[in-house]
Amino acid sequence: MDLVSQPLTAKAFEPYGEVFELQHARQMSINQGLTIRYHDLFRVDVATNDGRPAVNVFRTRPLPLPVEISVMERHPLGSQAFIPMHETPFPVLVGKPVDVLHATDLILFLTNGKQGINLHRNTWHHFQIVLDHLQDFLVVDRVGPGPNVEEVNVTGEAWIGPYSFPG
Amino acid sequence: MDLVSQPLTAKAFEPYGEVFELQHARQMSINQGLTIRYHDLFRVDVATNDGRPAVNVFRTRPLPLPVEISVMERHPLGSQAFIPMHETPFPVLVGKPVDVLHATDLILFLTNGKQGINLHRNTWHHFQIVLDHLQDFLVVDRVGPGPNVEEVNVTGEAWIGPYSFPG
Repeated sequence: MDLVSQPLTAKAFEPYGEVFELQHARQMSINQGLTIRYHDLFRVDVATNDGRPAVNVFRTRPLPLPVEISVMERHPLGSQAFIPMHETPFPVLVGKPVDVLHATDLILFLTNGKQGINLHRNTWHHFQIVLDHLQDFLVVDRVGPGPNVEEVNVTGEAWIGPYSFPG
Repeated sequence: MDLVSQPLTAKAFEPYGEVFELQHARQMSINQGLTIRYHDLFRVDVATNDGRPAVNVFRTRPLPLPVEISVMERHPLGSQAFIPMHETPFPVLVGKPVDVLHATDLILFLTNGKQGINLHRNTWHHFQIVLDHLQDFLVVDRVGPGPNVEEVNVTGEAWIGPYSFPG
C-alpha cells in the first residue's frame, strides 16, 4: 500500500506527541520590548533512569523515494523533539501504540513548514525523513544510562512514493 | 569608556559559559548515513530547585547604538543557551564574577556567525543584543520554582557604540 500523508495538526498528532508553532506559542515581550520570547514550546521528558537533556543538530539529506517502510523505532526513556531550522515541510511517519506494527498501523503526516514536533516517549516512528534539500534540525532528546532504542519490523507492505504527498 | 569586542573563543569564554559550533562537535552518522548527528552540544544545567528545561525562541530586534550599559543580570538557578538560527555574528556581553559590577569588569565578545553560547548559572550578562536585522535564536533555559533573575547596576560608564566592533 502507498502511504498517503495528511496535514499535521496538534489534535491528530496528540496520541504521538506535541506539535508546536511560534504563532500558537505563549508570547512574552522582554528585553525592553526588543525581544519576543516564544515561551516553553514543548515538554522535555528525559529524566527517567537518570537521563538528562541533549541538544543536538541533525543535518539530514533527502531520502530517495520510493522507499519501502520496513523498520520503525521508538525511545522508551525519552521524548525527542525536532525543531526545523528552515521553513520547509517535512514528513513525520508514526505508528499506532501496538507491539507488532502492520502497514495499516502507520500514519504519515506532513508539516506546514512552520511546525516542529516533540515525539512522546515510546512513540513508534521512522527515522527522520526530508524530501528536498539538505535540512538542519535542532533535536532535543535524552542521554543517560539504559537502552533507549527499540526497533520493530513492519508486517505487510507500506511505501512512501510519488503518491504519498498529494497537492 | 567604550567597550571593545574581542573574538569569541571557547578558552576566553570558559569562566562565563560554553561556546559550541557544529564543526567542533562530536559527529555521528545515523539513519543509514542520511543524517549527521552533531551530538550533545552543551550541558543543560537547570535541575536545581526542581527546575526543568524550557525550549524557547527569542525573536530579537537590533538594539539602537550607541547605548550605555547600566544594568546586567544573572540567573542563579539555571544555565541559558542561545543557538542562532542565522549565520550572523552577535555580541555577547558578560561580567566578571563579582557582586558589584564596575564598567571595567565587563567583557564584550563577538561571535563568528557559526557559534552558539551556553551561559553558566550565575554569569552576569546583558540581555540579548543583536546588531543587524531581526534575528531568531533557540534558547534553552529553566522554568521552575524560585526567583531566577538578579540584576545589578553597573558603576562607572560603559558604552557600546561605533568603536565597539572594529574590523
